[in-house]
Amino acid sequence: MNPLVAELTSSAIRDLLALTTAPGMLSLAGGLPAAEAFPVAEIAATTARLLADRPSSVLQYGPTEGDPTLRDWVARYEGGRCGRPIVAERVLITSGSQQALDLIARTLCRPGDVIVVEEPGYLGALQALRAAGARLEPVPVDAEGLDVDQLAARLAAGLRPVAVYTVTTFQNPSGVTLGPTRRRLLAELAERYAFVVIEDDPYAELGFRSAVGPAAEPGARPPVRTFTDTGVTLGSFSKTISPGLRVGWAVLPEVLVAPVTRLKQAADLHSGALGQAVIAELVSDDAWWRAHLERVRAVYAGRAVALAGALAERFGDRLQLNTAHGGMFLWGRFTDGTVPARLLPVALAEGVAFVPGAEFYTGPPDPHTLRLSYATNPPEALQRAADRLARAHATLTCTAGDGRARRSVER
Amino acid sequence: MNPLVAELTSSAIRDLLALTTAPGMLSLAGGLPAAEAFPVAEIAATTARLLADRPSSVLQYGPTEGDPTLRDWVARYEGGRCGRPIVAERVLITSGSQQALDLIARTLCRPGDVIVVEEPGYLGALQALRAAGARLEPVPVDAEGLDVDQLAARLAAGLRPVAVYTVTTFQNPSGVTLGPTRRRLLAELAERYAFVVIEDDPYAELGFRSAVGPAAEPGARPPVRTFTDTGVTLGSFSKTISPGLRVGWAVLPEVLVAPVTRLKQAADLHSGALGQAVIAELVSDDAWWRAHLERVRAVYAGRAVALAGALAERFGDRLQLNTAHGGMFLWGRFTDGTVPARLLPVALAEGVAFVPGAEFYTGPPDPHTLRLSYATNPPEALQRAADRLARAHATLTCTAGDGRARRSVER
Repeated sequence: MNPLVAELTSSAIRDLLALTTAPGMLSLAGGLPAAEAFPVAEIAATTARLLADRPSSVLQYGPTEGDPTLRDWVARYEGGRCGRPIVAERVLITSGSQQALDLIARTLCRPGDVIVVEEPGYLGALQALRAAGARLEPVPVDAEGLDVDQLAARLAAGLRPVAVYTVTTFQNPSGVTLGPTRRRLLAELAERYAFVVIEDDPYAELGFRSAVGPAAEPGARPPVRTFTDTGVTLGSFSKTISPGLRVGWAVLPEVLVAPVTRLKQAADLHSGALGQAVIAELVSDDAWWRAHLERVRAVYAGRAVALAGALAERFGDRLQLNTAHGGMFLWGRFTDGTVPARLLPVALAEGVAFVPGAEFYTGPPDPHTLRLSYATNPPEALQRAADRLARAHATLTCTAGDGRARRSVER
Repeated sequence: MNPLVAELTSSAIRDLLALTTAPGMLSLAGGLPAAEAFPVAEIAATTARLLADRPSSVLQYGPTEGDPTLRDWVARYEGGRCGRPIVAERVLITSGSQQALDLIARTLCRPGDVIVVEEPGYLGALQALRAAGARLEPVPVDAEGLDVDQLAARLAAGLRPVAVYTVTTFQNPSGVTLGPTRRRLLAELAERYAFVVIEDDPYAELGFRSAVGPAAEPGARPPVRTFTDTGVTLGSFSKTISPGLRVGWAVLPEVLVAPVTRLKQAADLHSGALGQAVIAELVSDDAWWRAHLERVRAVYAGRAVALAGALAERFGDRLQLNTAHGGMFLWGRFTDGTVPARLLPVALAEGVAFVPGAEFYTGPPDPHTLRLSYATNPPEALQRAADRLARAHATLTCTAGDGRARRSVER
């Protein structure tokens, strides 16, 4: 057996998701998008129309590269974001951006090649990069995103990665956004040291209007691709339309187009034709798309405020929280010594789930951190979730910090 | 860059498919299923119902292992075929059986490990196995399928593969079916020499009623899994319902379940939820499913007879053809010295496409062979395709066999 695969461990998030389907459980754990924001009626109407008008196209084998209309749309969209044209030939449609990452990692990596990852960082990426044989080198994330200065210092000291993987906007799990100066510097480093920036940007359209500061200004979050043509940009319709349709994309540098496309052909021939066609129809209606994104943002903004407020009320200074300007996550840190990995089983017994921050670290973790997703539940449920979390916290604290003893009694 | 990926060449079939979308082209090249056999009305009605009844399930992220109802159905179906129970935990739903092959190859192979393939064999498999780092060892296919006696001799002489890949029923490209004695012997060899039989069986349900001989009897084509529990069985709804929905499956030996599932999680999290749910609903209606399969078989049987008859009429003894008992392909061999690789450009100019048999060989090919798919076109179009092929053949023959000179003139 391939040792790279044999050594893959199941993602803690996925194992938790299995627990959190218990009836009555309020989950702040998974990154499940708000089902209330899925454009169900539009998907139903468009699917019905496509199946009536051109069934032998949307149900048949399709091109490996993806639906031509959707590739054109992505090229225009990504070109618009970075202020210069992108040809559709550079766009590959994938089964979610997760597949794009897997294909790119497999294409770039010889076993043992170094890929820089964010600390803390997205678990699904760590899995895909490890499966491709990459040696992961973590670089910390601070309030302005990936610490590009530290990366520069390590490159100067001899680090030679084939790629740097970063979720630049509303990062998973920390919620932070890479600052504009850092974006430019990261692009310069990529050209100087000849590595590929893999910029994963699934939350790009989930910025909140009410957010204060430059992160909320249009054009204030230019993709790293704006400053270099050697990078990869990954995008997804999972957070804006539906994850169940499995449609994402990669914009590739020219040299990677042919090998990544051939690997995709070997991997699954092509992504679902009907799902791609439905999404191509939906986003081509520009007025609808803009209005839909406003609705989605409003849903998430409302939930972010609700959860952050409910937690502040109940925990006060004992729990520091990031300010959510967009995306799906609050990142917290207990200042009273609470260890979320110990809090979790008590919280599950109270009917609320979250992910201990330690899960997102490649190296030694900050054991007091945790990730709380406000995406899945409506505001009133988030209030109840905060209540349950506070009760769990009180229970854990009352047992003189010995969470392990308490847990075994409860079982 | 990973040299395994850099060295992947685009499949000749895919490159041809790009050519064969020209208006008016009659393609016998691709393995595109008959669009006329897609259950469009049923897919439309089921999709509408699912989107009305449980949108937040079919549009949301789903389990990596696949839709539970569909996994149960596959377990019962495959258990029924091999005459002993299979638990649903052994079933992984994938994005077509192509993805299953990719995941299994990546899991089994360390770079340089040997995998035995059929000669001639399915191109998409050769691609996936090469991308996983396998060294391919071809073993010939004859009228009874993979030459298992030759395989046994080579194993006795020291060949030590990690896997043997075989399309056991109505093989792509040759159309032949592995005989019952060989199936049992292959399973015995797998246990004796500790390799995994990867049995790819997408055409299992496409056997023609009119077929003569044991291949047509129910139960006459037991999967190799019937005789060993160490094998992998791959299946697909691409040929029976719709390839555009990208739903296939793997039945895995227990030891492979966890690593292949984790690799799937890293590769694309899960396969399209809506497509899986639609198919689960459709196949759960057993009466409909059986009647639908009868209709599909009748479509293909009619087309097989039409193309075989039209070619026999026009070519007589100059073109030997296999007898199609099922599946999607005729495999032919010119006895008059015609080289299909030279015939192809002339044929494309006449408006008909096919695949030269040489494309399906890993080692030195038989240069006079070709694969003709009857799946895509209705009988009257197959008649015209045979006319065009006959004209192309006459043109090539008239130019004294110098196909290359002729071609450069035409360009």
